[in-house]
Amino acid sequence: MTGDVIETDAVIIGAGPVGLFQAFQLGLLEIRTHVVDALPHPGGQPAELYPDKPIYDIPAVPACTGQELTDALLKQVRPFEPTFHLGQTVSRVERQGDDRFLVSTSQRTSLLTRTVFIAAGVGAFEPRRLKLEGLETFEGSQLFFFPRLPEQEIGRRVLVVGDTDSAMQWALSLVNQGGVDVTLMHRRDVFQSSTDLQTQMRALCAQGRMRLLIGQATACESDGERLSAVSVLRADGAAERLDVDSMYVMQGLSPRLGAMAQWGLALERKQLVVDTATFSTSEPGIFAVGDINTYPGKRKLIVCGFHECVLAAYAAATRVFPGKAIHLEYTTSSSRLHRLLEVRPEPLGGPVP
Amino acid sequence: MTGDVIETDAVIIGAGPVGLFQAFQLGLLEIRTHVVDALPHPGGQPAELYPDKPIYDIPAVPACTGQELTDALLKQVRPFEPTFHLGQTVSRVERQGDDRFLVSTSQRTSLLTRTVFIAAGVGAFEPRRLKLEGLETFEGSQLFFFPRLPEQEIGRRVLVVGDTDSAMQWALSLVNQGGVDVTLMHRRDVFQSSTDLQTQMRALCAQGRMRLLIGQATACESDGERLSAVSVLRADGAAERLDVDSMYVMQGLSPRLGAMAQWGLALERKQLVVDTATFSTSEPGIFAVGDINTYPGKRKLIVCGFHECVLAAYAAATRVFPGKAIHLEYTTSSSRLHRLLEVRPEPLGGPVP
Repeated sequence: MTGDVIETDAVIIGAGPVGLFQAFQLGLLEIRTHVVDALPHPGGQPAELYPDKPIYDIPAVPACTGQELTDALLKQVRPFEPTFHLGQTVSRVERQGDDRFLVSTSQRTSLLTRTVFIAAGVGAFEPRRLKLEGLETFEGSQLFFFPRLPEQEIGRRVLVVGDTDSAMQWALSLVNQGGVDVTLMHRRDVFQSSTDLQTQMRALCAQGRMRLLIGQATACESDGERLSAVSVLRADGAAERLDVDSMYVMQGLSPRLGAMAQWGLALERKQLVVDTATFSTSEPGIFAVGDINTYPGKRKLIVCGFHECVLAAYAAATRVFPGKAIHLEYTTSSSRLHRLLEVRPEPLGGPVP
Repeated sequence: MTGDVIETDAVIIGAGPVGLFQAFQLGLLEIRTHVVDALPHPGGQPAELYPDKPIYDIPAVPACTGQELTDALLKQVRPFEPTFHLGQTVSRVERQGDDRFLVSTSQRTSLLTRTVFIAAGVGAFEPRRLKLEGLETFEGSQLFFFPRLPEQEIGRRVLVVGDTDSAMQWALSLVNQGGVDVTLMHRRDVFQSSTDLQTQMRALCAQGRMRLLIGQATACESDGERLSAVSVLRADGAAERLDVDSMYVMQGLSPRLGAMAQWGLALERKQLVVDTATFSTSEPGIFAVGDINTYPGKRKLIVCGFHECVLAAYAAATRVFPGKAIHLEYTTSSSRLHRLLEVRPEPLGGPVP
């Protein structure tokens, strides 16, 4: 164990709606949390896949978008200050001699925790890669899957691959930044991104401010240690060699259960089997909440995940605070909860007519 | 079976947050609902007991009062137009030969339904009564437990009994109406209502516009068929006879399990035992959700009740639509749900930057 190990009460894997509400419920019980997510921002599937589409079945929220849902949950959990470790996946969870868990991530973050909450939905969202021999070597230096600061690309030849909103928005941002040679490539001239973004993109192409290339990459070339060019088979049948300094592959995300499948937890059709009284997996101290778990009657709805967080938090509390009686308190009336939530006590009495 | 019987798919007992969300979840599955509540308005315990106190643990709602929670849930369920039967309690639930249930209320409403959902919290909220021999005879004619229209009391001598916000607000409304002789009576000169309401009440007393009487009713007198006077033992030890035309007893509400305890459902410490896969009680077709049920791990929190509504709704759907495959659909993407929710279809594509 080195000095770099962070000690905590709880590690939550997944910063989607259910992971965020898990941090809130643990906060009410005074359990400190660290949250790990593969994406570079919290919000998980709704924020990633439908940031602007309304959801209608969150109780007492007649309509909200995926992003609004995320923002509301982030605001709610703020008093408890969970620590986020984003853009990294959990690679290992190992039970220690003292019954704590050592959680290690792809970014070499090490967390020593009393409890683990798997709120990973359908798995870690990972960018859909481009299968080109040798391309992975340039990941992080010239190959990227998420936008960076547009000014980092000034003076460079940038290839953006994909037909998603993200790909389109990033290409437009680079053109608007100025000083960037931008090519957007997609295998066919049909895009999943919004009509509005496509209209803007085509207008910029017509003005000669960026290029749209319909085709597929077939190989990449390196110039010593640098990625220098990409070979493209165009949709019109012609071959082309494209000089590039940076490449952004933005073809959407696909979920992967990843390393989790190897942790020895009981699975049923790739779902983690849990006890509905505690939402514990087959390994005591490891809980599973939200779309990743299964039990009789399970429905993969966010509202069900929220409930699961509550029962998992109470079950975890008996592990984090052994021997301590854990009572249910109400946020309307408990002064302990008001202190934690940083709200001022309500004046006595009722409404002013 | 008379013509007055209303046929429906589902009867929900209780119009609190969980009962309202139950109606919403059933609505998504195209199950028609009727909702019965003892109170004269929907909202249940939070709207009744802490209409203006914030609740902090509704997921994605960082803070809302009991009334705001009710309003949001009513707005959410609106597209499904549940029928409310308010101010009445369910007196009988009888299984019929065809496996439907005949639900009868204290107001002689008869509902013939395929399923029953008990979302009654700690029981029906009933007004705390005043134990005076013969007083109950005047209920509905001269004795009331909830406010009516203030103009109905013009020219009358009105006695309001109680120290609640409701009692105080009603007395103030009557004074502000004008033309009403108002006496507010409470057994001691200490009130649970808000300081602001008390200040207003004392100001009106000082101006001689109403009277505050500290004492307890000991008997009531009737003049043939009408309630004519109440005998009071004042806190100063003196006896007084008070002429009255109307009497409002507003001493708060207390929950009663009432008739429900007699329906033969399995109970554990006065809670209905349910199966966590379906939230069915021991009687097939009768479900129990929210604070009234019990199961391993149960926590009496609104968010848990919301989850229970989902699983109970799906279980009920197999009963309402026998033989029909019931699939989970998402409100973000299902055009069937968009039609039901009366939302316009989203334009294709994503956000406008």
